[in-house]
Amino acid sequence: MKLYSNAASPFARKVRVVILETGQGDSVDLVEVFGTTVDPGTMPIDKNPLGRLPVLEAEGQAIYDSRVICRYLIAQAAAPLYGSDSDQWRILTLEASGDGIMDSALGIVYEKRVRPEGMHYAPVMEGHWSKIERMLGGLDRNWLDLLEAPLNIGQISVACALGYLDFRLSDRDWRSANPKLSAWYESFSARDSMKATVPPAA
Amino acid sequence: MKLYSNAASPFARKVRVVILETGQGDSVDLVEVFGTTVDPGTMPIDKNPLGRLPVLEAEGQAIYDSRVICRYLIAQAAAPLYGSDSDQWRILTLEASGDGIMDSALGIVYEKRVRPEGMHYAPVMEGHWSKIERMLGGLDRNWLDLLEAPLNIGQISVACALGYLDFRLSDRDWRSANPKLSAWYESFSARDSMKATVPPAA
Repeated sequence: MKLYSNAASPFARKVRVVILETGQGDSVDLVEVFGTTVDPGTMPIDKNPLGRLPVLEAEGQAIYDSRVICRYLIAQAAAPLYGSDSDQWRILTLEASGDGIMDSALGIVYEKRVRPEGMHYAPVMEGHWSKIERMLGGLDRNWLDLLEAPLNIGQISVACALGYLDFRLSDRDWRSANPKLSAWYESFSARDSMKATVPPAA
Repeated sequence: MKLYSNAASPFARKVRVVILETGQGDSVDLVEVFGTTVDPGTMPIDKNPLGRLPVLEAEGQAIYDSRVICRYLIAQAAAPLYGSDSDQWRILTLEASGDGIMDSALGIVYEKRVRPEGMHYAPVMEGHWSKIERMLGGLDRNWLDLLEAPLNIGQISVACALGYLDFRLSDRDWRSANPKLSAWYESFSARDSMKATVPPAA
């Protein structure tokens, strides 16, 4: 298999953590690509015309987006990362919560990356940060049981989202208002899969 | 069940089409809510702190986002909308293709809705439109087999995406370069589920 990926992308990191946690590291070649909203750069647009990453090539087809790729890899490994029948909807909602944090964090980062100075619109960035803050508060209050359960895709998504906040939005302090989430992340970050996928220094 | 929804949202429409196609219309109450990136408005942020819609309340829990809600409703109805084991990864990738078109279309719409005049940045809007154009071309060339197969979630996603282009970006002509996709959409739009969920005149 071949994964079109970028070392700085939280969505690609999520896939790479799943690859490692399901023991498929030797079966997937990483291809580093780069692009933005305004320029697809080296993105494999013949495989995903949206010009977004990650994209997995497997069985002669292109599979995207990250959530679909994770499901594919988890199915290949028959790994129990979606929990039991009774847990699965909360686990999928936890996964969507992590993905939503990533979306808003990227919204903030892209505001400055793709727009010229003078066109950075603070209410959009603060609107995204409000979403993130509220979601982190919800995770800290209501989701510790599932975060501390056996490994599931929701944990991986949330951990990659928090890692991205540290990587790109380190001027924002997410920890002090969310001590339980912060302690959980500290412990989750020590997993080999997380250590192997830390984004490079900017 | 209760669905927090908005009549103009393509992601909410996708869920509402699934509800109708799986015969669950009588089991779901719709609650109309509204918000934007910069203001959560009447969004149920106690249920989804991200302040995004749709959100489904079922079995005493909040389920989001739209892709997770669709999977839940399809599982409840034991409907074959993910196809066979061999089809499922292409069907999920087709679903992600429709979702990606919606994301980029919303990117264009929100550019003008939430930013003041003079801060609408054309390269972002054109970047999103390029993603949409490339994806539509890909659908027209490579996905007709699955679009014309028995009903699946990928078709619903693509149809709601195209409906949104007609609704909000009707100044852009997506049809003439994509005649096969356009003919397919014409026929798919005639389904009762699509007719019952046409967005209101602006």
